[in-house]
Amino acid sequence: MPAIDFWYSIGSTYSYLTVMRLERVAQETGVTFRWHPFNVRHVMTVQKNIPFKDKPEKAAYMWRDIERRAAGYGLHPKFPVNYPIPELVLANQIAVLGEQEGWVETYTRAAYRGWFEAGHRPGEEPNLTAALSAAGQEPARVIAEAQSERVTSMLEAVTELAMGKGIFGSPSFLVGDELFWGDDRLEDAVAWAKRSG
Amino acid sequence: MPAIDFWYSIGSTYSYLTVMRLERVAQETGVTFRWHPFNVRHVMTVQKNIPFKDKPEKAAYMWRDIERRAAGYGLHPKFPVNYPIPELVLANQIAVLGEQEGWVETYTRAAYRGWFEAGHRPGEEPNLTAALSAAGQEPARVIAEAQSERVTSMLEAVTELAMGKGIFGSPSFLVGDELFWGDDRLEDAVAWAKRSG
Repeated sequence: MPAIDFWYSIGSTYSYLTVMRLERVAQETGVTFRWHPFNVRHVMTVQKNIPFKDKPEKAAYMWRDIERRAAGYGLHPKFPVNYPIPELVLANQIAVLGEQEGWVETYTRAAYRGWFEAGHRPGEEPNLTAALSAAGQEPARVIAEAQSERVTSMLEAVTELAMGKGIFGSPSFLVGDELFWGDDRLEDAVAWAKRSG
Repeated sequence: MPAIDFWYSIGSTYSYLTVMRLERVAQETGVTFRWHPFNVRHVMTVQKNIPFKDKPEKAAYMWRDIERRAAGYGLHPKFPVNYPIPELVLANQIAVLGEQEGWVETYTRAAYRGWFEAGHRPGEEPNLTAALSAAGQEPARVIAEAQSERVTSMLEAVTELAMGKGIFGSPSFLVGDELFWGDDRLEDAVAWAKRSG
């Protein structure tokens, strides 16, 4: 079965679309997705690639574009979305721990649903407890463990790894070495994986 | 018949894909496209939105993405493409004159074909003479007229108009007030136009 590496950061706006539809895409296409959270804010800072800050025209378009595409996917985000999120690092430290322990998908979906549909920012309460409970995890344990030296270093390491693969934004899809960026390239990535696989 | 306003700048990379396939899309969908050249470089400077300069990772991805999508459209650009183009303003002054006189589409397609497929930058020779000849125009007359006060002011005025409509990049599609940005949103714009029309 073809496999795609899905690189994303909780905190990315367009990644909402991917996170919420990826399970269905996997079922419909038979493609396996490996979820890899990383720190896109660090990558963008290093690369001086800040897409929306101080760009009101582009930001306004981005929200409208997400609204239209979400409707096409049957999603119902509530606008305005609380953005950006201050606790991006913690939200993704938890996600890498979840990747290691096997609950990253459920946690990520719940964190995004809480953010885009209930207005609660990831990495903060009440989103943290709600998303971790949805993933069957004990919040206090996870929140402490996610801030340990081990997990902090792990998020930094996978972020360096992502940069080494040419990733500069979220969501990104890797089919072998072939990079696709943006929720709107998911179908292209799937087609590529099926041809390659 | 539904109509879409197509706003673009000669000099934009992704606009190559749109310029080269728009005639076929119009025939296949029955949608009319009104071509409106403007100065995207001015807009991006004003809005501090510089997508590829000093961003090698993102630029490398952009070229690969264009290569893949061009192949999907049956286009055959030659890489590396000579970018950016120093004579963006003249290339688009000529285009607005062509819009007024009715030969903008042929000129724009020929200018892009010369740029992406033969390696000659728009707004310079030999691209200028080749593209204007393809459009049935006398190069010396057009090049002089395009730099007149009248045409210079016209390009500036339509660029302000574009900004007033929320346009921040090229290619853009307007269906009434609904903005779609990027060659990859052309199908969405067509669907919107058909629903609205």
